[in-house]
Order: sequence, then structure tokens, then C-alpha cells
Amino acid sequence: MNNSKYSSQLLEKAVTEINRLPGIGSKTSLRLALYLLRQEEERVEALAESLVNMRQGVHYCQVCHNICDNDHCEICSNPTRDRSLVCVVEDVQDVMAIENTMQYRGLYHVLGGVISPIDGIGPADLQIESLVERVKQGGVEEVILALSPTMEGDTTNFYIYRKIEETGVKVTVIARGIAQNDELQYTDEITLGRALAGRIPFTSS
Amino acid sequence: MNNSKYSSQLLEKAVTEINRLPGIGSKTSLRLALYLLRQEEERVEALAESLVNMRQGVHYCQVCHNICDNDHCEICSNPTRDRSLVCVVEDVQDVMAIENTMQYRGLYHVLGGVISPIDGIGPADLQIESLVERVKQGGVEEVILALSPTMEGDTTNFYIYRKIEETGVKVTVIARGIAQNDELQYTDEITLGRALAGRIPFTSS
Repeated sequence: MNNSKYSSQLLEKAVTEINRLPGIGSKTSLRLALYLLRQEEERVEALAESLVNMRQGVHYCQVCHNICDNDHCEICSNPTRDRSLVCVVEDVQDVMAIENTMQYRGLYHVLGGVISPIDGIGPADLQIESLVERVKQGGVEEVILALSPTMEGDTTNFYIYRKIEETGVKVTVIARGIAQNDELQYTDEITLGRALAGRIPFTSS
Repeated sequence: MNNSKYSSQLLEKAVTEINRLPGIGSKTSLRLALYLLRQEEERVEALAESLVNMRQGVHYCQVCHNICDNDHCEICSNPTRDRSLVCVVEDVQDVMAIENTMQYRGLYHVLGGVISPIDGIGPADLQIESLVERVKQGGVEEVILALSPTMEGDTTNFYIYRKIEETGVKVTVIARGIAQNDELQYTDEITLGRALAGRIPFTSS
């Protein structure tokens, strides 16, 4: 009698590995493994290869720490981007989100996280020192803080501000207010208070 | 300017490959790819290797067509199983489901699907001929049809019955009725009708 419920050690190993991915439960893992079993061998190899190649080949930009295939990311290497603006974000997904707005033409600085004592993440674990260095080297006129509006994000904003303050470079933070299509009556007090405090002149455009 | 939204071709390739998996959308694909980027290289290689090894190494049992690592699956090779019973199922997940009940000690026969003209699946695409051969070789006393109670399942049951009928081997079908904890008033008429028609003597055990 087989001591595994999968009747194949190879299948079981694959299901176990897939199951280690975040948000993929054991039923989904089995479903995905059996799906791959039914596909062409080349297709499974292409998937496996793409994962290993990515893990081995992806670099981090030496300037902004965004992911890239070379030493410098395509945003930092792009001569048409405004080099006087640096937008500070938590991770690479935030860069993608801001790029998708098509509203920003400056550069980025990816911290790799936010200060979170509970998770054991301090300033030294993040790309904060390199941000300060970058600002001190000159050329940067404004640092835009675009971290999530959480306690950790606020702490990190404050820490960065204190570090950059002495350089005299302008430090701004992205607007906090009521999201598009949100209903006012269901908005929490902190957000509503900040939206009121941060009110701007009305324009009809 | 990069024409991709991922700033890395290697990341994009990995996201594209993950996205081809069923039920994994583009946001989840990106999340999984970025997760793997943060893991140890060995971990990503182990995942990739397990998928390729599974696809290359998994065999199908020559008797019942269940998946296995050798020529014969561990159920067919197990001398303590009742070789006079053959339970016909659609795919390997059904074998696992029935094994999990711990109620069945016979053998299986995995068809690899059900007859479905809409999907272009005919009897020749399934392991029906090998089932008929297996029954004709003797030793089988009962064939238990355990396909899903759908039109396709019913069609396949009927087709198999007609093919086996002449051998005189007993053919049974698993009970259809109201599932445990289902409410009678919300049960559809076909199920309720079949549950009434298939009533059995009450036992207090």
C-alpha cells in the first residue's frame, strides 16, 4: 500500500512544491499539477525555465533598486525622464502601479519595504541610506513620498524626512483623501479629516 | 522607454508562463513571480525541477491507467486488494477521492474522460476498449460505474454497459441521492426522484 495519497512520488513532490507558493492551497496545487501532466513536455519545460531564468537573471537597478535585466533600469536609463523628481515607493509593484497612471515622468527609488519593528524591519534593512546619498549627490529637486498610508508607511515617511531635511530638498507626500467612487458617508474619520485638511482650489477641468 | 510594463523581460516571461495556468490571473501571476524572485535560488530550482521531473517521469498504469511511477500502479500491484471488483472513474482525482473514503478495497479503471460529442470526445479517445478487454480476460465479477451524474456520464455509463453486457459480468452504478447535509426542499427534482426510486431498507446502524 502506498503511504502517499497521490500514487506517484513525482506527482506528490510537484504538488508539495506548488503548495509552498503563497495563496495556493492543496486542492489548487493538485489541480495545477494534473493540468501540467496533461500538457506537452515542452510547455512544462518552458514554464520551469522561465522561473529559473528569472530568479537567476533579474538584476536590481544600482540607482533606484527597481528590477531590471541590466545594471540600470529602463526608467533610470531613459533620457526623457525628469531627473529632478524622485518618487519613493515600497516595492516594484508600486512602480508598475504609478507607471500605469501615465501621470509621472520622474525617477523612482524602491525602498524594498517599510520600517516595521513588529516584523523586525529597521531602516538598515531598506534602501534609505542609498536614497539619502542620492539626494546629497545633487540634481534632485523634489522627493515625493508615495508609501502606503499605514502606520508603518507614516513612520518611514517621517524617518526619511528627518534624514533629508538638512539637504533643503523639497519633500512632498502624495495626496490622501477619498478614493474615486467611494461614498463619503462610509469613509473613515482619519481619511475624511485628511481630505478636508488637504482641500485644494476647485477647478472645472 | 521599455515597451513592457514589467521593466524586466525575464520577469515578463515568467509572468506570462505562470499566467497560462488555468485559474491563475495576471495579478496573481505577477504576485507569484515577485514572490519567487525574493526566494532562495535553490527553492525556485526545486520547484522548476519538480514540475519537469513529474511531467517526464510520471507513467500511467498499464492495467488501470492511474498515474504511477512505474509500469503498474500501487493499487493494481497490491495483493490485498479485491481483484474481482473494478471501479470505473473519469480521472485520477476520482481515484484519490474514492481512496480517501477508505470504503473501497477493489481495483480501478481510469477512463481519462467521458464521452462528450460537444468537446469532440468519442469512445475511442477513452480507455473503454481496454476496460472491455480487461473484463473479457476474466477474474472480474463486478464493474462499478462511478462517473459523474451528468448527461455525459450517463451516456458513457450506457455505452460501457452495452459493451460489457454480453460478458454477463455484473454492472452496478454508485447510488444517486441526496448528499449528506443537503436540504430536501432545495434538492432538484431529478435527484429527488432518483433518491425515491433508489430507496433502500432502513437500518439503525
